[in-house]
Amino acid sequence: MRTIASGRHGRADHARRESAQMAFGRTHVGHGAHTTWFFETFVLRPHVSNYRPFDEAFEALFNSYYETIGSPYPRSERGLLSRPAVADVYSYRSHVDAAMLDLIQEGLNPDLNARIRLGIEHEQQHQELLLTDIKHILGSNPLRPTYSAAYRNDSPVKEVIAPTQGWLSCPEGVRQIGQSRIESGNDDFHFDNEGPRHRIYLHEFALASRLVTNGEFREFIEDDGYSRHELWLADGWTEAKQRQWQSPLYWQRTGERWLQYTLDGVRALQDAEPVCHISYYEADAYARWRQCRLPTEAEWEIAASNYEVDGNLVESGALHPLPAKTASTTQFFGDVWEWTASDYAPYPGYRPAAGALGEYNGKFMCNQRVLRGGSCATPRAHLRATYRNFFPPSVRWQFSGLRLARSV
Amino acid sequence: MRTIASGRHGRADHARRESAQMAFGRTHVGHGAHTTWFFETFVLRPHVSNYRPFDEAFEALFNSYYETIGSPYPRSERGLLSRPAVADVYSYRSHVDAAMLDLIQEGLNPDLNARIRLGIEHEQQHQELLLTDIKHILGSNPLRPTYSAAYRNDSPVKEVIAPTQGWLSCPEGVRQIGQSRIESGNDDFHFDNEGPRHRIYLHEFALASRLVTNGEFREFIEDDGYSRHELWLADGWTEAKQRQWQSPLYWQRTGERWLQYTLDGVRALQDAEPVCHISYYEADAYARWRQCRLPTEAEWEIAASNYEVDGNLVESGALHPLPAKTASTTQFFGDVWEWTASDYAPYPGYRPAAGALGEYNGKFMCNQRVLRGGSCATPRAHLRATYRNFFPPSVRWQFSGLRLARSV
Amino acid sequence: MRTIASGRHGRADHARRESAQMAFGRTHVGHGAHTTWFFETFVLRPHVSNYRPFDEAFEALFNSYYETIGSPYPRSERGLLSRPAVADVYSYRSHVDAAMLDLIQEGLNPDLNARIRLGIEHEQQHQELLLTDIKHILGSNPLRPTYSAAYRNDSPVKEVIAPTQGWLSCPEGVRQIGQSRIESGNDDFHFDNEGPRHRIYLHEFALASRLVTNGEFREFIEDDGYSRHELWLADGWTEAKQRQWQSPLYWQRTGERWLQYTLDGVRALQDAEPVCHISYYEADAYARWRQCRLPTEAEWEIAASNYEVDGNLVESGALHPLPAKTASTTQFFGDVWEWTASDYAPYPGYRPAAGALGEYNGKFMCNQRVLRGGSCATPRAHLRATYRNFFPPSVRWQFSGLRLARSV
Amino acid sequence: MRTIASGRHGRADHARRESAQMAFGRTHVGHGAHTTWFFETFVLRPHVSNYRPFDEAFEALFNSYYETIGSPYPRSERGLLSRPAVADVYSYRSHVDAAMLDLIQEGLNPDLNARIRLGIEHEQQHQELLLTDIKHILGSNPLRPTYSAAYRNDSPVKEVIAPTQGWLSCPEGVRQIGQSRIESGNDDFHFDNEGPRHRIYLHEFALASRLVTNGEFREFIEDDGYSRHELWLADGWTEAKQRQWQSPLYWQRTGERWLQYTLDGVRALQDAEPVCHISYYEADAYARWRQCRLPTEAEWEIAASNYEVDGNLVESGALHPLPAKTASTTQFFGDVWEWTASDYAPYPGYRPAAGALGEYNGKFMCNQRVLRGGSCATPRAHLRATYRNFFPPSVRWQFSGLRLARSV
Repeated sequence: MRTIASGRHGRADHARRESAQMAFGRTHVGHGAHTTWFFETFVLRPHVSNYRPFDEAFEALFNSYYETIGSPYPRSERGLLSRPAVADVYSYRSHVDAAMLDLIQEGLNPDLNARIRLGIEHEQQHQELLLTDIKHILGSNPLRPTYSAAYRNDSPVKEVIAPTQGWLSCPEGVRQIGQSRIESGNDDFHFDNEGPRHRIYLHEFALASRLVTNGEFREFIEDDGYSRHELWLADGWTEAKQRQWQSPLYWQRTGERWLQYTLDGVRALQDAEPVCHISYYEADAYARWRQCRLPTEAEWEIAASNYEVDGNLVESGALHPLPAKTASTTQFFGDVWEWTASDYAPYPGYRPAAGALGEYNGKFMCNQRVLRGGSCATPRAHLRATYRNFFPPSVRWQFSGLRLARSV
Repeated sequence: MRTIASGRHGRADHARRESAQMAFGRTHVGHGAHTTWFFETFVLRPHVSNYRPFDEAFEALFNSYYETIGSPYPRSERGLLSRPAVADVYSYRSHVDAAMLDLIQEGLNPDLNARIRLGIEHEQQHQELLLTDIKHILGSNPLRPTYSAAYRNDSPVKEVIAPTQGWLSCPEGVRQIGQSRIESGNDDFHFDNEGPRHRIYLHEFALASRLVTNGEFREFIEDDGYSRHELWLADGWTEAKQRQWQSPLYWQRTGERWLQYTLDGVRALQDAEPVCHISYYEADAYARWRQCRLPTEAEWEIAASNYEVDGNLVESGALHPLPAKTASTTQFFGDVWEWTASDYAPYPGYRPAAGALGEYNGKFMCNQRVLRGGSCATPRAHLRATYRNFFPPSVRWQFSGLRLARSV
Repeated sequence: MRTIASGRHGRADHARRESAQMAFGRTHVGHGAHTTWFFETFVLRPHVSNYRPFDEAFEALFNSYYETIGSPYPRSERGLLSRPAVADVYSYRSHVDAAMLDLIQEGLNPDLNARIRLGIEHEQQHQELLLTDIKHILGSNPLRPTYSAAYRNDSPVKEVIAPTQGWLSCPEGVRQIGQSRIESGNDDFHFDNEGPRHRIYLHEFALASRLVTNGEFREFIEDDGYSRHELWLADGWTEAKQRQWQSPLYWQRTGERWLQYTLDGVRALQDAEPVCHISYYEADAYARWRQCRLPTEAEWEIAASNYEVDGNLVESGALHPLPAKTASTTQFFGDVWEWTASDYAPYPGYRPAAGALGEYNGKFMCNQRVLRGGSCATPRAHLRATYRNFFPPSVRWQFSGLRLARSV
Repeated sequence: MRTIASGRHGRADHARRESAQMAFGRTHVGHGAHTTWFFETFVLRPHVSNYRPFDEAFEALFNSYYETIGSPYPRSERGLLSRPAVADVYSYRSHVDAAMLDLIQEGLNPDLNARIRLGIEHEQQHQELLLTDIKHILGSNPLRPTYSAAYRNDSPVKEVIAPTQGWLSCPEGVRQIGQSRIESGNDDFHFDNEGPRHRIYLHEFALASRLVTNGEFREFIEDDGYSRHELWLADGWTEAKQRQWQSPLYWQRTGERWLQYTLDGVRALQDAEPVCHISYYEADAYARWRQCRLPTEAEWEIAASNYEVDGNLVESGALHPLPAKTASTTQFFGDVWEWTASDYAPYPGYRPAAGALGEYNGKFMCNQRVLRGGSCATPRAHLRATYRNFFPPSVRWQFSGLRLARSV
């Protein structure tokens, strides 16, 4: 049970530090209340006979999208919610924590164990979202406030040069990707969408040896990449024109100089850092401009599986993508989520879990693209080579970038 | 200068009490920063040569709509602003307060005196808006939180019966309404839109001796008033269907019983209280259903001028409309703003002030209706029989109700 | 009954000429079917016991907005209607015409007479709308097609100079405007919104002796009138920016030259012609820029009542506003509808007709401005000095212009 | 060159018959002008030195989406286009036809041959769209007009029973799909998106032996399929609720009976016919409800390649899907386009053509699903087992249905 405990305590520590500031109170309240709700709704209510819910109104209020569980509170009106107060949400959390600890001490059957594990993994996902939401809120503020120094105070600002990009190639043939079903009693975890493990046919391909950098992306901008329709998917072109995209999110130009908003505040754009906060459409247009393409998720997984899950993840404290250190730094894990060319679709033989928990992944398998590899805001324990993140192709507020691919 | 001092101190007290809670922090920050901005922008920056602005970025950030003053920050994105923090806004206020006190101690010329007076009246308007915004935010929250007991703790709940409604009639003829220009050196104040004083021709009419009550409005609902298109203006019918209006804002039915959200929380609807939080369209439909009409603003002013500016205003502490006590309680002042049939238009000979201050009233003279009489959230010192409030016909979040009129 | 017969035959002639071309078939079908529907719905169905409706489906299909009469077909989907075919609408018309003639030959009681008269006046309104709709459809087409020469072939293109504008002044005092109730048996007609006749108090004012011209309006454009927010109402400024207004509708600049789309096609802008196809917001901004204002409808009526209802109306065949010929050409009637500063509101003592016919005028008395005087597309027999046209302040596709006013 | 000639004449015949009616004039004008534009823009303008364009304004007007070719006329305003008249579009066509015949008689090089072939295939696509647009326009009309009997007069109305559905299974392994590059001089044709031919890995699967029928889909409706969120993709659920879908498009219930609008008019729903006019979301929800899934496009192609391209295509004249005749009628080709589970994506090694012609397919490869097999409105010569049609998952106005699949 150590994993569970540390996972949850990790969150609690995080929350405690946060409580000193409150500046982003509402964001925090939303994420914190929702992840707490998950434990109450999927563990305590159905499995603890004498459990007394903290507040009946919270069931609908903090339900993000589970249609099975009552009526979710409409997203568009969430901005109006000034209550419950931060302190009430902490009380809610304490109430649920206490009930969870009681339950855990009584001992868990495999189903309960699996549910709690899912709750922890869910909370890890929200830890990342909490950071990207805070960045979005602060970065959209004309005051461009700096994210509190309580978290970090040494920002990596010395100018470096990115190593030359090489190619990692892979021969044609039948391969296997995905995860097998976990044996009962095993401590492993993966989401249902990562399985079943299955055969695919790969054509010969090569992936870039590192991520695309800011400097490389600047070349695309300077070559009028944002104004040349022939480089863009039709939907991307419409989106880019409508939203007047001229650069990645958080970039701003001052005369000849590019600046970038980071969680440390605004600073000069570093050419050697991986480009970040781009949509799928921009990633795709960039790749086309380089006469390359984006990797499929299968290609990515086959290539990345040769490397250890390590890199600039949330534990590094950088909260920002960092330049590749050497020519052999592949950056497969951490820094930025890598857009793949793959539609988010079920693997052959995929079946979602029964009931409300089955709404976790399967029902989103339409109109989204798979991203791979984790980012500088992802907890290491949360990541695997088979991990499938997914977002609609137009979003930019995640730490999202790209790696080039080409057919050989 | 006593008026000025107490006006501003009134605000300061209000703010200090607020600071204990922070729950509605963002609302408070918005109003407090904006009214402070008014003094900085229209008094300190142009008239104090060595004034050092608190933060240059605040000029655009807290500009609500003055096109003359830079680019106002877009309203639709204000919800994203989590900074400046509450404490920063108080520092901003202190900074501006100090500079204002210095300026006042040096002595004021008539122009400066007028600008400061306008700033105070502006702040009084925002004191009312602060309350209605808080009510809207809390009342839209499914938790229906109660507005803090720090403000008030005795709610008027005993059931009473409204006095029978009579009619106050007025003969045909030429009358005068509005305000003459204020003599220099005079302590009087009115907004530019209240003048010039001018003649109008009134036809014989009668106004109801009190406001329409909840009980009377329930009869409209029970007679299917919300479903009978022939009672409604075309625009009102469209609006009511689109927004699915079935009752005034903040009413909710539980079985046979009507409840109402107030700043004290949800409580049983009191039939004797004036109906409140209705749009112009609902007021107009109700009047048509009673085979009456709404008063024009001229009729209202002529009738109300016979009475003292007194009633259930913000100083009563009720923060809610109260039943008329006796048959001679006319309720012309306080309780609810009364929708009039009058388009918000310039009086004959009206000229707005020059420059940015001229944007205060004149440019809104289209697509709005005049409301008269103040509400339970209006400071008494802010009100006059000639006072012209105005809102688009569809809004409901103000303390707005109606009084019947009829032609004779 | 002569009036009735000629009124309807006027329409029939119009239709017959139209039938040669069909180019704007759908527009024509819409207006023609709807005015026919009016006779069927309000005269034949309720008053002719053995009347057999032409097609039951037409009742909802051609109902523009009468909520009392079934469910109007949604406006937003009218563009999808390719049926009934033009020929079917003519059959519908013949069917209704025949039944109407039978009814008329039997003799009419006063109520029926009034209903038929209303139907004829209604059809005259649609004759004007038919022209402005055709102009809008053709003028929005990048091919800028010319309206058929079957109607007219001599366009007034020789350059003239507008006479100098003078002022017509009017002293202060009580006046009367509007129409008295019509005596039974009288052949006169006015819409219900023109009455009752009533007293108003007018302050001394002066109206311009003619309409504002294109040349004068160009000066506003050249003085950056469309870019100076201080000249605009707040709603107008928003609208103008959103729709990117830079000139009246149908104007286009080619280098230094202004062109204008007319029903004769694109031709050089004539400075001496009255400015046309402007919104209320543009009229209001122009007047403010000239340090004048728009007339109220009462001022307009009092001034215009001194002149005969004559001018460049639809019978002139110009289908376009024409320059004032002499300094004494007041242009009160014809050329362009003149925006007034008056909200479209009920006159004191106004009561709409009972039933569905009561939906004709009263329910639109909100968020609209009154226009006076008729245009080059208005039939002379349809117009009076008391006639109140009304449109929302943002519309531009009518022949709408302005006359300056000032307080003295 | 026979293929070319007959292809184009096929279109001309079609147009000639159409000209007798004009009822859907605008639809016809749009498609006819656009396909003509294709020949003018991609063949005549660039390759015939002395070609004189029919009307310069048509270049932008009939450009559907080619960003390379000037500025396409905005789609949202196409409904306003009443010109050019039908007769002008026929003149345009004659003009282009004549120039094309001249060019063909001079002899064609392989590039020109390929461009002309693409133009013909493009026109075949629009022949199908013309029918589905007409159906949509007439079927949205409350009069529910019948498509002209000039086309067809024998509708298949006798009640039949669909054969029992069996399963066609396919073992696991590496397979090949798609088209190889065409040898120069060869008469074959396929779109660029059908290639390159490439290996894929298929898991064991089975496809239903025929299409899902109306009767089977009724069971889904009767089992509350449209109200059970757990059967739907999240985006589909949102769409279905927003548009209030309760059945396939063109179905309507009268008491206990289901009717269906067809090009023959409204008639009783035939249980044995394939279900039609459903979105991807409905197809997916239906399959989930049957505890099955949709086929991938690879599975479909492998299974369908065993059968001849034959079935109820446009040449049958039915213009409506027909019941499977026997248990061995697989319905792979014709009747309805079959939604597949596959995102519309490039095949490994895919490269679009250079220049504007490259905008034909590649740039749409996002947010669309592949449909396979052709419909009752598809010309037989236009279809292949490798043909990839694609539409966004929410559209319903095509003849679109489904076939069940399952993993084994």
